[in-house]
Amino acid sequence: MIKTEIKAIQEMKERVCHENIRLEKSGLVVLTWGNVSEVNRELGVVVIKPSGVPYEEMLPEQMVVTDLEGNLLEENSLKPSSDLATHLVLYKEFEEVGAIVHTHSKYAVMWAQAGRDLLPYGTTHADTFYGSVPITRQLTEEEVLRSYEKDTGAIIVETFRNRKLNPLAVPAVLTRNHGPFTWAKTIEKAVENSIVLDEVAHMALGTEVLSNHHEKIPSYLLDKHYFRKHGENAYYGQG
Amino acid sequence: MIKTEIKAIQEMKERVCHENIRLEKSGLVVLTWGNVSEVNRELGVVVIKPSGVPYEEMLPEQMVVTDLEGNLLEENSLKPSSDLATHLVLYKEFEEVGAIVHTHSKYAVMWAQAGRDLLPYGTTHADTFYGSVPITRQLTEEEVLRSYEKDTGAIIVETFRNRKLNPLAVPAVLTRNHGPFTWAKTIEKAVENSIVLDEVAHMALGTEVLSNHHEKIPSYLLDKHYFRKHGENAYYGQG
Amino acid sequence: MIKTEIKAIQEMKERVCHENIRLEKSGLVVLTWGNVSEVNRELGVVVIKPSGVPYEEMLPEQMVVTDLEGNLLEENSLKPSSDLATHLVLYKEFEEVGAIVHTHSKYAVMWAQAGRDLLPYGTTHADTFYGSVPITRQLTEEEVLRSYEKDTGAIIVETFRNRKLNPLAVPAVLTRNHGPFTWAKTIEKAVENSIVLDEVAHMALGTEVLSNHHEKIPSYLLDKHYFRKHGENAYYGQG
Amino acid sequence: MIKTEIKAIQEMKERVCHENIRLEKSGLVVLTWGNVSEVNRELGVVVIKPSGVPYEEMLPEQMVVTDLEGNLLEENSLKPSSDLATHLVLYKEFEEVGAIVHTHSKYAVMWAQAGRDLLPYGTTHADTFYGSVPITRQLTEEEVLRSYEKDTGAIIVETFRNRKLNPLAVPAVLTRNHGPFTWAKTIEKAVENSIVLDEVAHMALGTEVLSNHHEKIPSYLLDKHYFRKHGENAYYGQG
Repeated sequence: MIKTEIKAIQEMKERVCHENIRLEKSGLVVLTWGNVSEVNRELGVVVIKPSGVPYEEMLPEQMVVTDLEGNLLEENSLKPSSDLATHLVLYKEFEEVGAIVHTHSKYAVMWAQAGRDLLPYGTTHADTFYGSVPITRQLTEEEVLRSYEKDTGAIIVETFRNRKLNPLAVPAVLTRNHGPFTWAKTIEKAVENSIVLDEVAHMALGTEVLSNHHEKIPSYLLDKHYFRKHGENAYYGQG
Repeated sequence: MIKTEIKAIQEMKERVCHENIRLEKSGLVVLTWGNVSEVNRELGVVVIKPSGVPYEEMLPEQMVVTDLEGNLLEENSLKPSSDLATHLVLYKEFEEVGAIVHTHSKYAVMWAQAGRDLLPYGTTHADTFYGSVPITRQLTEEEVLRSYEKDTGAIIVETFRNRKLNPLAVPAVLTRNHGPFTWAKTIEKAVENSIVLDEVAHMALGTEVLSNHHEKIPSYLLDKHYFRKHGENAYYGQG
Repeated sequence: MIKTEIKAIQEMKERVCHENIRLEKSGLVVLTWGNVSEVNRELGVVVIKPSGVPYEEMLPEQMVVTDLEGNLLEENSLKPSSDLATHLVLYKEFEEVGAIVHTHSKYAVMWAQAGRDLLPYGTTHADTFYGSVPITRQLTEEEVLRSYEKDTGAIIVETFRNRKLNPLAVPAVLTRNHGPFTWAKTIEKAVENSIVLDEVAHMALGTEVLSNHHEKIPSYLLDKHYFRKHGENAYYGQG
Repeated sequence: MIKTEIKAIQEMKERVCHENIRLEKSGLVVLTWGNVSEVNRELGVVVIKPSGVPYEEMLPEQMVVTDLEGNLLEENSLKPSSDLATHLVLYKEFEEVGAIVHTHSKYAVMWAQAGRDLLPYGTTHADTFYGSVPITRQLTEEEVLRSYEKDTGAIIVETFRNRKLNPLAVPAVLTRNHGPFTWAKTIEKAVENSIVLDEVAHMALGTEVLSNHHEKIPSYLLDKHYFRKHGENAYYGQG
């Protein structure tokens, strides 16, 4: 491997380690649950958290480097997160995605366990997610027994295809009875999307408790907030 | 600009920076959501948080200085918070208001998303808000497309006019499907009003879960608590 | 005043200041809400938090010293907490009580605003409160206008008399549309009772959400847990 | 006692003290509630937290050493946790269990007070608990009066026998109107099971609020997640 590639992978490891720890500090993660990965499509390399390593001891050199088929690329590598296969399916299908995050964050899990789309009740949701965050269908017994983590990726892809969703406009999914995955072009943004998702999942829960008629945000207000922050006419932030 | 004006604006920047950070530390703010501004009516100057700058890096010199029409008054200024236009409408209409705060604080947003007035269920509410915190009507599609942030201010004003509310007696509003704005004569008090609002929004949510009949605080008890802390016969605090 | 009395009052001030700060650190208090007092019945002296002073700046010498009629006993005293009159009524009626705490803690307030007794659903409740924590009746308009804080004490006393409750066995009350008062022989225990009250108020809220039939703890289990910790046959702790 | 035994007990005390403090830091414990014990079956020794000692002052030498009948084995011992008798019954019946934890953690208590099994709504539950966490029946008045803590153990055993549950596959129970006990082969894992239990109890509460039909996780998905982490075909973690 040439020198610049070694350096690029080293920097990926540092970012992946840093963002996994940031995810845990944000309060979304209990024990060792949750994992963050990043892809470098030119090098054909994915870096992901190792499985079951406590966050307080986590070091960049422990991050696991694989190719897009999940083959380990370094000697003496730790085992990758058991959800790696799900990440890989998503990287292959969602071509603009540069990083993926999986958590069992409390409020997003409540919606996943209830088997429901997370509905866009307000502008906090619309600022990040352009419409409902979809729930996947249940995996069949055959799918679970065959290749569970890979098929988890496959039903996410199926959900986005069937509903004709753009994964960068709706950068999150709820896997039924399980929990959320989020993603983005950059790893910082992918982690932020997990933070936003749990926050709006909590807000939407309270909204339903308070109201008998569940009235979604009007589509023109959804558009306004989403495009105030995203796309060529965005005017939020310093960019 | 003469020397005392420069000093006055410098002090505004320090206060606005300090109170934005205090707002974030209070737990009401996720990521870069939320903004605090202050007006100096003699100078015709508003100071507000820049858009999308992380709180941990925020410095007084980054605060944005505008006139009451929103024109930037300093060279090399950062972009102001995208909600500036809403603040300006409120400063023009609410003549005694010296500072405005906008957040997406969780429990206040739940009420805003439910499209409901926050009802005064107890003395914690009455100590700060003299009656229900009103919900605005929904903006029309035309209003959203025309001048969204300005019209957000306009429907707040419309709400207070229609209901004949005194903005200093009810120093908060819930914008429908969006979230709260609070204000006060001083910037410290405006931030405190956001803190109180989220707390009483949480208490009121639990109150409704626990009771089938939602009985508001009696008006004489509302009066007692509000006027124990406000107006010429107040006897709370050391003032 | 003789030397030992001066020393006794100095120690009361230190305890009262310390326990007010502990109350705030426990998460039960927002802004300057909440107050703790202690009585020395031999000296005829009450020490209470001053009104509206921020917790982070609070010093023992700022604590306010009064007699049992509420007369200030020191020159240059700050104003006492506006709830002093309520504390004094309780000290007079509940002769074994040595300290009183008032908060607007979130979950206890939800029950107070719902106008309901806090029911004993489990042993966590029974370990501290021997039966329901009672809700007071609503004050009449006349009572509120006449002497609000004193009459708040009077309806607490009325509630305990009418229900024949022992204030040391049920060391807490919920004042309707307002919030909790707790007490105990010692100031440390009085603060702990506020902590326990909010915790069991939260647990009871969740219990009701989860169950359609609200089944109270059996009275024999209530007895067991209460008397495991209280009275001459107690066997909890090292005492 | 020979030298290696003294050392083994010393190490137990350090672990038990450390894990009691970790339990408190995890946010599951209020005041002095909660206790952790460990057994050494070869030595016939149990080490448990003393009753009512504040966590911030807790030292390894204060941990209480007993035999499996609850007899104190050291001079000048503090009194053991009042729940010791429950722990001892469980150690006798559940032969592979090496450590036991009791808490009054908020969300687990809500389910215990509601008198309901904690249902497996998702994979977060299935990763640790192979099926519902069972609720015990109510103790009779006679049982409470006779030997309350011992009979609390007896009804846990009865529950596991009647339902033919494997205590290592379902390492937790909810005692009705009281709260949870968890256990495991190791003390670290027993504490983690308490953390997971409260988290999934919270998630399940929200799940029920969000859904009218309460649909449990399919059994094949429960199997998959449980056996992904447990047993000879587990592939989670580095082990």
